[in-house]
Amino acid sequence: MSAELEDIHEECGIFGVWGHPDAARLTYFGLHALQHRGQEGAGIVANDNGQLTGHRGKGLLTQVFNDEREIQRLAGDRAIGHVRYATAGSGGSDNIQPFIFRFHDGDMALCHNGNLTNCPSLRRQLEDGGAIFHSNSDTEVLMHLLRRSSQRTFMDKLKEALNTVHGGFAYLIMTTDAMIGALDPNGFRPLSLGKMKNGAYVLASETCALDIVGAELVRNIRPGEIVVVDDHGYKITQYTNQTQLAICSMEFIYFARPDSDIYGVNVHSARKRMGARLAVESPVDADMVIGVPNSSLSAASGYAEASGLPNEMGLIKNQYVARTFIQPTQELREQGVRMKLSAVRGVVKGKRVVVIDDSIVRGTTSKRIVQLLKEAGAAEVHMRISSPPLKYPCFYGIDISTTKELIAAKKSVDEIRDFIGADSLAFLSLDGLIESIGLGAKAPYGGLCVAYFNGDYPTALDDYESAFLKSLTPEDRVRLPEFALYKSKYEGNEYHAGPPQSEQPQDQ
Amino acid sequence: MSAELEDIHEECGIFGVWGHPDAARLTYFGLHALQHRGQEGAGIVANDNGQLTGHRGKGLLTQVFNDEREIQRLAGDRAIGHVRYATAGSGGSDNIQPFIFRFHDGDMALCHNGNLTNCPSLRRQLEDGGAIFHSNSDTEVLMHLLRRSSQRTFMDKLKEALNTVHGGFAYLIMTTDAMIGALDPNGFRPLSLGKMKNGAYVLASETCALDIVGAELVRNIRPGEIVVVDDHGYKITQYTNQTQLAICSMEFIYFARPDSDIYGVNVHSARKRMGARLAVESPVDADMVIGVPNSSLSAASGYAEASGLPNEMGLIKNQYVARTFIQPTQELREQGVRMKLSAVRGVVKGKRVVVIDDSIVRGTTSKRIVQLLKEAGAAEVHMRISSPPLKYPCFYGIDISTTKELIAAKKSVDEIRDFIGADSLAFLSLDGLIESIGLGAKAPYGGLCVAYFNGDYPTALDDYESAFLKSLTPEDRVRLPEFALYKSKYEGNEYHAGPPQSEQPQDQ
Amino acid sequence: MSAELEDIHEECGIFGVWGHPDAARLTYFGLHALQHRGQEGAGIVANDNGQLTGHRGKGLLTQVFNDEREIQRLAGDRAIGHVRYATAGSGGSDNIQPFIFRFHDGDMALCHNGNLTNCPSLRRQLEDGGAIFHSNSDTEVLMHLLRRSSQRTFMDKLKEALNTVHGGFAYLIMTTDAMIGALDPNGFRPLSLGKMKNGAYVLASETCALDIVGAELVRNIRPGEIVVVDDHGYKITQYTNQTQLAICSMEFIYFARPDSDIYGVNVHSARKRMGARLAVESPVDADMVIGVPNSSLSAASGYAEASGLPNEMGLIKNQYVARTFIQPTQELREQGVRMKLSAVRGVVKGKRVVVIDDSIVRGTTSKRIVQLLKEAGAAEVHMRISSPPLKYPCFYGIDISTTKELIAAKKSVDEIRDFIGADSLAFLSLDGLIESIGLGAKAPYGGLCVAYFNGDYPTALDDYESAFLKSLTPEDRVRLPEFALYKSKYEGNEYHAGPPQSEQPQDQ
Amino acid sequence: MSAELEDIHEECGIFGVWGHPDAARLTYFGLHALQHRGQEGAGIVANDNGQLTGHRGKGLLTQVFNDEREIQRLAGDRAIGHVRYATAGSGGSDNIQPFIFRFHDGDMALCHNGNLTNCPSLRRQLEDGGAIFHSNSDTEVLMHLLRRSSQRTFMDKLKEALNTVHGGFAYLIMTTDAMIGALDPNGFRPLSLGKMKNGAYVLASETCALDIVGAELVRNIRPGEIVVVDDHGYKITQYTNQTQLAICSMEFIYFARPDSDIYGVNVHSARKRMGARLAVESPVDADMVIGVPNSSLSAASGYAEASGLPNEMGLIKNQYVARTFIQPTQELREQGVRMKLSAVRGVVKGKRVVVIDDSIVRGTTSKRIVQLLKEAGAAEVHMRISSPPLKYPCFYGIDISTTKELIAAKKSVDEIRDFIGADSLAFLSLDGLIESIGLGAKAPYGGLCVAYFNGDYPTALDDYESAFLKSLTPEDRVRLPEFALYKSKYEGNEYHAGPPQSEQPQDQ
Repeated sequence: MSAELEDIHEECGIFGVWGHPDAARLTYFGLHALQHRGQEGAGIVANDNGQLTGHRGKGLLTQVFNDEREIQRLAGDRAIGHVRYATAGSGGSDNIQPFIFRFHDGDMALCHNGNLTNCPSLRRQLEDGGAIFHSNSDTEVLMHLLRRSSQRTFMDKLKEALNTVHGGFAYLIMTTDAMIGALDPNGFRPLSLGKMKNGAYVLASETCALDIVGAELVRNIRPGEIVVVDDHGYKITQYTNQTQLAICSMEFIYFARPDSDIYGVNVHSARKRMGARLAVESPVDADMVIGVPNSSLSAASGYAEASGLPNEMGLIKNQYVARTFIQPTQELREQGVRMKLSAVRGVVKGKRVVVIDDSIVRGTTSKRIVQLLKEAGAAEVHMRISSPPLKYPCFYGIDISTTKELIAAKKSVDEIRDFIGADSLAFLSLDGLIESIGLGAKAPYGGLCVAYFNGDYPTALDDYESAFLKSLTPEDRVRLPEFALYKSKYEGNEYHAGPPQSEQPQDQ
Repeated sequence: MSAELEDIHEECGIFGVWGHPDAARLTYFGLHALQHRGQEGAGIVANDNGQLTGHRGKGLLTQVFNDEREIQRLAGDRAIGHVRYATAGSGGSDNIQPFIFRFHDGDMALCHNGNLTNCPSLRRQLEDGGAIFHSNSDTEVLMHLLRRSSQRTFMDKLKEALNTVHGGFAYLIMTTDAMIGALDPNGFRPLSLGKMKNGAYVLASETCALDIVGAELVRNIRPGEIVVVDDHGYKITQYTNQTQLAICSMEFIYFARPDSDIYGVNVHSARKRMGARLAVESPVDADMVIGVPNSSLSAASGYAEASGLPNEMGLIKNQYVARTFIQPTQELREQGVRMKLSAVRGVVKGKRVVVIDDSIVRGTTSKRIVQLLKEAGAAEVHMRISSPPLKYPCFYGIDISTTKELIAAKKSVDEIRDFIGADSLAFLSLDGLIESIGLGAKAPYGGLCVAYFNGDYPTALDDYESAFLKSLTPEDRVRLPEFALYKSKYEGNEYHAGPPQSEQPQDQ
Repeated sequence: MSAELEDIHEECGIFGVWGHPDAARLTYFGLHALQHRGQEGAGIVANDNGQLTGHRGKGLLTQVFNDEREIQRLAGDRAIGHVRYATAGSGGSDNIQPFIFRFHDGDMALCHNGNLTNCPSLRRQLEDGGAIFHSNSDTEVLMHLLRRSSQRTFMDKLKEALNTVHGGFAYLIMTTDAMIGALDPNGFRPLSLGKMKNGAYVLASETCALDIVGAELVRNIRPGEIVVVDDHGYKITQYTNQTQLAICSMEFIYFARPDSDIYGVNVHSARKRMGARLAVESPVDADMVIGVPNSSLSAASGYAEASGLPNEMGLIKNQYVARTFIQPTQELREQGVRMKLSAVRGVVKGKRVVVIDDSIVRGTTSKRIVQLLKEAGAAEVHMRISSPPLKYPCFYGIDISTTKELIAAKKSVDEIRDFIGADSLAFLSLDGLIESIGLGAKAPYGGLCVAYFNGDYPTALDDYESAFLKSLTPEDRVRLPEFALYKSKYEGNEYHAGPPQSEQPQDQ
Repeated sequence: MSAELEDIHEECGIFGVWGHPDAARLTYFGLHALQHRGQEGAGIVANDNGQLTGHRGKGLLTQVFNDEREIQRLAGDRAIGHVRYATAGSGGSDNIQPFIFRFHDGDMALCHNGNLTNCPSLRRQLEDGGAIFHSNSDTEVLMHLLRRSSQRTFMDKLKEALNTVHGGFAYLIMTTDAMIGALDPNGFRPLSLGKMKNGAYVLASETCALDIVGAELVRNIRPGEIVVVDDHGYKITQYTNQTQLAICSMEFIYFARPDSDIYGVNVHSARKRMGARLAVESPVDADMVIGVPNSSLSAASGYAEASGLPNEMGLIKNQYVARTFIQPTQELREQGVRMKLSAVRGVVKGKRVVVIDDSIVRGTTSKRIVQLLKEAGAAEVHMRISSPPLKYPCFYGIDISTTKELIAAKKSVDEIRDFIGADSLAFLSLDGLIESIGLGAKAPYGGLCVAYFNGDYPTALDDYESAFLKSLTPEDRVRLPEFALYKSKYEGNEYHAGPPQSEQPQDQ
């Protein structure tokens, strides 16, 4: 996990398997590989010949499933599962997925990764039509649309529903006789189909979850696609042809596990290229490079190799600290008790260090890192960020909903440097980011969503647009000249909707 | 944690604080930084004006202290704590330390890191004198000796007891009015004294635990020393002058946290030097260097920098896997479900890789790593080990009690290479190890114990000697020409008992 | 708890409070007094100025709320809560109440005690209209009806919904600005309104829950009534005038706590009168009376006093046994290991005993009791049951859904006596039961539902009627001459809908 | 459990089995039947061919053994177990028994019910000889004496040790090849030997634990006896002939389960006789009798039958309340929230009630009961206590260590009546108690210890004597004319040491 990005949460990870006698257990392992995508809640629903049984709970997967019997109870050769971050506020465990719905014509389960831009208005319309909601989450909306659709077949109902919701989403649905995945028209989130040695099919948010269960990648699911897995195999169809790849660049920068491949691009390698590019763009005369553990170690390695500086372990993360119930008091904190990160005095004392981090959100963690290193005797601290400045909120599933919390939305690079107390500060350029990732899709920004950096959202913002525009002060508008809402929004067939260039050899 | 060394357990980590109103909580944080030294049990005993209260339990610290109230109940401004590995077999929680002893003249608590070579015979003698033992551990022996000593003062009793026990030990004792640390005459285990900003003193197995509570290093405790901390400050005395530094080289290779300094030598830096030396001793024509996470990343970085090869993340460890209750079935394992380590296909596919690991014990994990990498498409796998071959058991606190389990005790390097399936294999030389660590003490091997590598034990083996000698077959004796039991054993004042050269600037 | 009736589960207990700063904690205590009504799940929803927060879980209240913080988190001066029995099958924790529903115009929470006779058809209709269901329970149906009602005001919508559902129900609803209770037109379940010293109002399934929080009874809620509690006090209205009191006689026989009053009749006293009447109807020449602990102790006391026989403790219940995870193996059971009930050899040896139990369901427990007493040396065992033979299922909230499991539906009293091995057996007469309870309402059977004894159901059976009629074999119909489905069903205004005579002095 | 006596804790219950393949599970069930004797901690040690394995923990048995695997891990066909009350203060879980001791010549486990009068001085002597103590409990003392004995055989060592400890004790010892029970020379605590159908032998504090595992009583262990069970059967020997039966009368009054027999006297029947005698000694003109649940229900039944008054359930105990983590705030308590006991308004309103309780300790609970009943409308409340006034501490295992807390040591019966607010108050006479129990042993007080009532202790008080005598003010001495320390102390062979008359037919 990154230092600063710990405060930015992605919504979820999803995993499903069809056709393995130990389906719930496999789902458990698959979700384990996706645990970094959501640590506040987890659930699995198994399908035993059409009978759906589930178990959900708060906390890490190991806390929710702390007893072998919980897995054994989830019988059946099909299962889907979910890990999630809790949203603030009320409702708590009611929001943990997958949700099970009980119908006279068969049960269904549903889980979801993403955020809908027109959810508030859809909810309101549905409620006006008598719909009742158990959760705060966007997920239930799809099920209401599906059940209320006037289309005749299940697939037609589903397509209608998917065309009604807007924004970023990867859905995973378990019906009595099929497992279905669906991706939004921009493919904001990754979703991959794999196949196990015994022939079972697997759907997962990241390829690392295919690896953990020994599955081979069959095909990445692409924007606007529905994949249906049943006893006859899998079948992929389009529910819309108005697609344009805009995968979240944050997946490459921070969220995804380094051993995952996204459209054929290995995440660790992409990060290393970002670090190398950063070394070229913003070199420093220093003694060593230090990565902020754990998510910036790849970029630091790239920076070190490109710059010829040694790559040192000058910061260390306490790996057991994550879930401690006992916290330092404020007084102890002031006396220097620090749990998460420590600076390694024996490494940095008297040295000029380049610190590589993957981004700056509020700036408070960066400030603490600089302070830790200086207290440990570092002679100079040069901060290098392997992504451009974060200035705009995300409406597709990352928990940055206003610009207020983003230091780069308010301050210049020099002002940020002064705030965090570094001797110098530089960010990777937007072009540097896009070229380092190297997806190469025939879509704006090479197929990436980079709206957090330049405000160019690839879709309409729907229910969020008005509040977002209002949140920009006149001053903001002047200081943010690159602001270009919807510049890259899909307006027809001008962009290529196929897989990015990078993926061509992998799964075709 | 290393891959292969996960099976080799050190006994413990110890931490104590004197003079802080939140002593138990500080001890909790200090133990957190030492959690890597023992994950099977933990305990804290607080001293509230002479009243000792404790809490102990199985599992990680966060499992033992899963409630704020457990810490609040441990009132007092003095506390000691312990993390440990469970020994196999019976007794379970009875062995979790610190032990509390209740006497009419005041309670005492005691915990211990190490192993006594004459424990069985001392236990037998004590039992014959009516002593009763609650635990299997060596720890109680010291308390029996102390209470049965015919010396007059407490300090004289303690010195007599410390001169009676042999082997490797770092003791931490809490009496009603003092906290006492004591180290064996060879200083097999590290022990450091620190001071907090408010004036409180801290004793800890590693300096990383001083850092976490914001304490400055005052002084490393040296072989044969007793440190007494009470309301008047600290005082260090010698209970023997027959000392000779022989600190466990495994602390540098694997056990200690990379951010700890031992006698002024930073552990990460030492590991990096081992890797660099290994690159010089055993170069490979390859495409990249890969470290086995987490403990071999420093050495890999050193190898990469010295060899000019890129350092890549070709193996990844699932950070959340540690404590899962749900395990893959044998069948799933055979189908490729793997929880701990994954190879990163996108990184290693088609590449010639140098894998750096810190040691080989049984060889089974190394074999698995080679297999993972080859399955992920690596063209060649060259294994490089950043320490010499492990051939002899340890009797001072590391859980390798027979040579039977050590593959290097039975097989040549070529045989091991064939067993693990690597394209080539090389180990760091003993001289390379000693020079890379660079303690520079005027003692054999520069102040390190390297008996696991060459059989040269720095003390008599006492109760273990006969069985150890018997375990060596004639064939072993021929194949192990360097065998030199006790060659380096202390025989007078010929070696310098002071701090190693490396430490001179730090704490004098 | 009774011996035989342990297998018959009531659905729930409900409790709510409005106007006390510690509302969730009071609800916890209120549910504690109702724990006997449901031990498989519990939940509380608090209302903090319109913000609803809940906590639910499996098991006893003390298991669900095992941390003070769980209660503290439920802020607000209004709360409702629920204890329940799990229904078999899938869905598990999804069925634990109160349910929270999230609407744009304010959240609502709902819980429910009872069973709807037209639930399956209502569900089907609602699903056809696009409704989605998270649970298997009947409870969600009311919320769907409420939200889909075309009436204008909330109260009119609620009245319409209540007139649409049939069967037995006591609903408790929390809206942002009111707490609402509602009872079915027959008042199958008890529901009482109380007032605390600070002016807060309380609604509870039984008066014992009013007592535990120090509340005074204001008024029993009567058939067909809605009570609305808000900041202006309480208001009671009728949603139908087609009411006819038919309170479940099992509440008096077994379910309710002996210290509760139902319509002014104390449950312990009613049981004692049943026992006394049984002594008159079926006397025995014996040495002592023994009650089956705990629920038959009142009846045994009545029998003993009326018969002049001593009342002895010849059976004892292991009070700590309830929730043990460790069970005797089958082999141990055969060797006589018995956990729940023991016969007291020192009391019964050589004696002729009359055993009083409250009912016989399958007969297996009665058989075991007789065997226990005979093995302990009882010379004769005469079984006396303080209610009539159970022959018909209940469709209003008690978990007896078929006659198959009821021994009295298949066997004559003599056959049952032979089956259980008693020297004699007798049941209380139906008239004896009605007169002992003594509600005295101007409704059939004095205001009691006695359908389990004589098949005279006070309502249409709706969706269950067809299967029920089919379950009766021709032989059954001959052997069950008193069968008279709907004989007492409400057909107009012929019966008095007011409070029973017994209650007149209490709450008018 | 009684109302007032809940504050008086007995130390323990013990159970052991020899010769059953499921020994640990049987011990679990045996301890279940003894759970009322200690609810703060529990443990079991199993012996698997000489290998001792244990599990201990805080809380109820179901909390300590909350997983089937905990029992399965305790392999072996021999086991002993223990339930205990925690003593206040430090040490916590270190005091939970059975203790395991590890010796080179075989492990031993030990547990203990009682209190030694010369423990402090023995501990001091042993400590002066170098002994170390892990716990605060008296139990370790025996093991030290045993191991330090200069006798040759194990049995001679044990006898010497048993003759060295004074006071009240029932020990249970597991060696590698035998299970041993031993009782003090006065037999203060009950201990019974039973035999299972498969031939296994069982030792238990009460016969109810024999019943629960289906064992037949073989023989009560008598004062001064040692019973050794091994693969050859059982053998009983005397370690002293200076015995005199003085079994704790509190066992009959409160501690023992009503279904247990002690020396052939059924406890429920004895309590019923106490109640009947109380009715004769102190009749009341009243409407009903009410027993304080649960322990006074037998006495209330006896009082009711003897007086001809109806026996009513006027007080009810919330059976699920025992282990709740959520407590009423002080404010709620003042508003009438009451968890443990409720008065049943419907029963007592307007009535003159006789309340039967088994004793008065501090008087605070009696006061609360009177208040509850008066608030519920009782016209008169007459308190009748089925034992004499408690005036003196117990030194043999009951937790009343000073007279300060005993209201009857300070106040006359009239003063107590005024304090508790009852309309009248009477206690059972000492003769009434002795004759109601009816042991009939040829020893003072028929073989009962009644020192808490009259100060006539059957043994020297040893280490406690001086403080006890000092605690008596001159005023006390005048007000306590019956004080007669040691009047009944054994002084030779004048009393019969055999079994009491009551037992003759049972086990001879």
